[in-house]
Amino acid sequence: MLERSGIITLTTDFGLADTYVGILHGVIRGICPQARLVDLCHQVRPQNLLQGGFLLASACGYFPQGTVHLAVVDPGVGTERPAIAMQTPQAFFVAPDNGLLSWVWQEMSPTDRSRTRIVELNEPRYWLPQISRTFHGRDIFAPTAAHLAAGLQLECLGPPRQQISLLEGATPIYQDDGRVLGQIVHIDHFGNCVSSIPGESFLAAATGGRLHLQVGGNHLEGLVHTYAEGEPGRPQVLMGSSGRLEVAVPQGSAAKLLGLAIHDPVQAWIVRD
Amino acid sequence: MLERSGIITLTTDFGLADTYVGILHGVIRGICPQARLVDLCHQVRPQNLLQGGFLLASACGYFPQGTVHLAVVDPGVGTERPAIAMQTPQAFFVAPDNGLLSWVWQEMSPTDRSRTRIVELNEPRYWLPQISRTFHGRDIFAPTAAHLAAGLQLECLGPPRQQISLLEGATPIYQDDGRVLGQIVHIDHFGNCVSSIPGESFLAAATGGRLHLQVGGNHLEGLVHTYAEGEPGRPQVLMGSSGRLEVAVPQGSAAKLLGLAIHDPVQAWIVRD
Amino acid sequence: MLERSGIITLTTDFGLADTYVGILHGVIRGICPQARLVDLCHQVRPQNLLQGGFLLASACGYFPQGTVHLAVVDPGVGTERPAIAMQTPQAFFVAPDNGLLSWVWQEMSPTDRSRTRIVELNEPRYWLPQISRTFHGRDIFAPTAAHLAAGLQLECLGPPRQQISLLEGATPIYQDDGRVLGQIVHIDHFGNCVSSIPGESFLAAATGGRLHLQVGGNHLEGLVHTYAEGEPGRPQVLMGSSGRLEVAVPQGSAAKLLGLAIHDPVQAWIVRD
Repeated sequence: MLERSGIITLTTDFGLADTYVGILHGVIRGICPQARLVDLCHQVRPQNLLQGGFLLASACGYFPQGTVHLAVVDPGVGTERPAIAMQTPQAFFVAPDNGLLSWVWQEMSPTDRSRTRIVELNEPRYWLPQISRTFHGRDIFAPTAAHLAAGLQLECLGPPRQQISLLEGATPIYQDDGRVLGQIVHIDHFGNCVSSIPGESFLAAATGGRLHLQVGGNHLEGLVHTYAEGEPGRPQVLMGSSGRLEVAVPQGSAAKLLGLAIHDPVQAWIVRD
Repeated sequence: MLERSGIITLTTDFGLADTYVGILHGVIRGICPQARLVDLCHQVRPQNLLQGGFLLASACGYFPQGTVHLAVVDPGVGTERPAIAMQTPQAFFVAPDNGLLSWVWQEMSPTDRSRTRIVELNEPRYWLPQISRTFHGRDIFAPTAAHLAAGLQLECLGPPRQQISLLEGATPIYQDDGRVLGQIVHIDHFGNCVSSIPGESFLAAATGGRLHLQVGGNHLEGLVHTYAEGEPGRPQVLMGSSGRLEVAVPQGSAAKLLGLAIHDPVQAWIVRD
Repeated sequence: MLERSGIITLTTDFGLADTYVGILHGVIRGICPQARLVDLCHQVRPQNLLQGGFLLASACGYFPQGTVHLAVVDPGVGTERPAIAMQTPQAFFVAPDNGLLSWVWQEMSPTDRSRTRIVELNEPRYWLPQISRTFHGRDIFAPTAAHLAAGLQLECLGPPRQQISLLEGATPIYQDDGRVLGQIVHIDHFGNCVSSIPGESFLAAATGGRLHLQVGGNHLEGLVHTYAEGEPGRPQVLMGSSGRLEVAVPQGSAAKLLGLAIHDPVQAWIVRD
């Protein structure tokens, strides 16, 4: 039993130029008027499951236990991809089963995974009366999230599933030679380029050596600790607020300066003193 | 008597680069602290009454009965255009009387229209103490919406009016030869181009024939049901989530590919088998 | 003793393309679940303290007494700049002490200033357990704002300070020859260019004379009262909704037409009839 926090977060690629997000709010409030809604991010690149899943996973830990996370990046809307809900020891997740929850799954401990339950949504009584072929966010996912936030048991939503779809490439590869292979998974508003490579181990290792990072034909060395460090205009590596290695440019945009994009491969390794 | 849902939606062309929207929230909360605010859309093209009214009308049906919809697209702010509030059997609307509520009005049934009451806002006691010439959203419309959400009777706001201003061209024209003439009324975040032509009748007719659609010099044929159908990069027609015919490009932007803009004329018709 | 309104506003340069803002909401709700959050503006130009401070100061007066205003524009995050909280007779402010609160301070009356208390944040018990070097908005400022909204006394947050850092150039200069020297401090969504020069005195003076305004090599004359006045496409001066002189172009963008940018110097004066 996981007590509800009353909070529902929303992560989508809908943007803010339309009423799509507002309609989700309206549908949710019709079912669970007292819910507290938080727009986590609606600027996921259109149909980018890697980025959308990363953003959700790096943010969901900052919400109270029992929060419902609604995520809709859904290139296959109206086709046969299943819709799922997942209950972990910390939170609920409602999403299409297309890999969007890969990051959340892969960041859980084995114990938490063994305590996680997944169901396939197949009970229309918890959906809107009319189901379109183009907007399941409104018709299926939002009502489901609202019912969960209002206290509905996960099991009422549909039959159990043993696993979820996972994206390839979301997890970094740790090579025997000590190199870690990952990719750019997000570019933020300031042009900072966030990689999939966790920074923690490099922070420790760098005390007896020097970090090297290769991305998009650029070779960077060393690790700084704040955005204010280093020369203006010169790219540098730091561990960003999501705990990942990140390329930043003081007073500039790393994405623009280095021409980086989401999915660009990244390699990091330590050279000992 | 229409019970309040406690929800106020906001639709404006203010964008999100300023504090204009935040100030509306502040003013509303000062009058009705317990209101639940939903930003429906603030990216209406500057001063575009056709688009703003369409967005509001296509979204308001997804909110609980008794919701107050505040809409401010107001090129004539500070001039003589009246400000109005309208109570339908479903909801309240607060807006300048400049055609912005045309879509809402035209989509109501005759019965609902006969039960709809309209007043002209002329009671400064329900406004902010100081009225600027440039920001009636803050000074007049937001306080009015907040008072309605808090339970004030419509009649307290000012004298009744018999009708509202209607925009030309918001309603499609049904020709004798079976052609329906409309226009592009919205381009969404994905580049999908939404027309003013309802899709329902074409869905049915298309079983015994084939949809033809003409827009901006392009001739399209056939009707798909999901965004994932059809060839990537090739424009196609579907009934979008707002129930209107819409031009979309799988994995692309119809607006960019076909160079379409809001107000572009659209024609649709069925050719029988 | 200042009773809490339960409202927390957020002003940042984080943009809306990331989850940074959503994470602030999550952290706040974990500490003060019943808070009402208002996103005042997240599109402050990256690291622009002048604009961020102006936007906050021009909006905060529209919120109920006892509101907590959280402002994070923080180029020096992770360095030695102090973090502060301030309690005025009207509201609470939480921000880095880097000049961001200059406008709020300078617009207070001397009496209000004498009743204002400032503390430096140095009590980690009111922060997140882990403090990063890159995201004090999440780790320090948001938790502090949440604790204040929940009723914590200002004095609990840290030792008193006598003053805050002030930005140069935020206040206009009144010359002996009657000229007022200011700068462009904000460009809004419509392209209107807002100056730091208060409009009130010019409104009065203009009845017996004519306003002259110089900005970016342009000389403008006269004062209009609404955005709808004047010729389309022709720049004009009016007192905007924030009470400042503002350059606008009917049906156009003053910023684009005149090539204006934030920080551009502005001069205004009256020529008597």
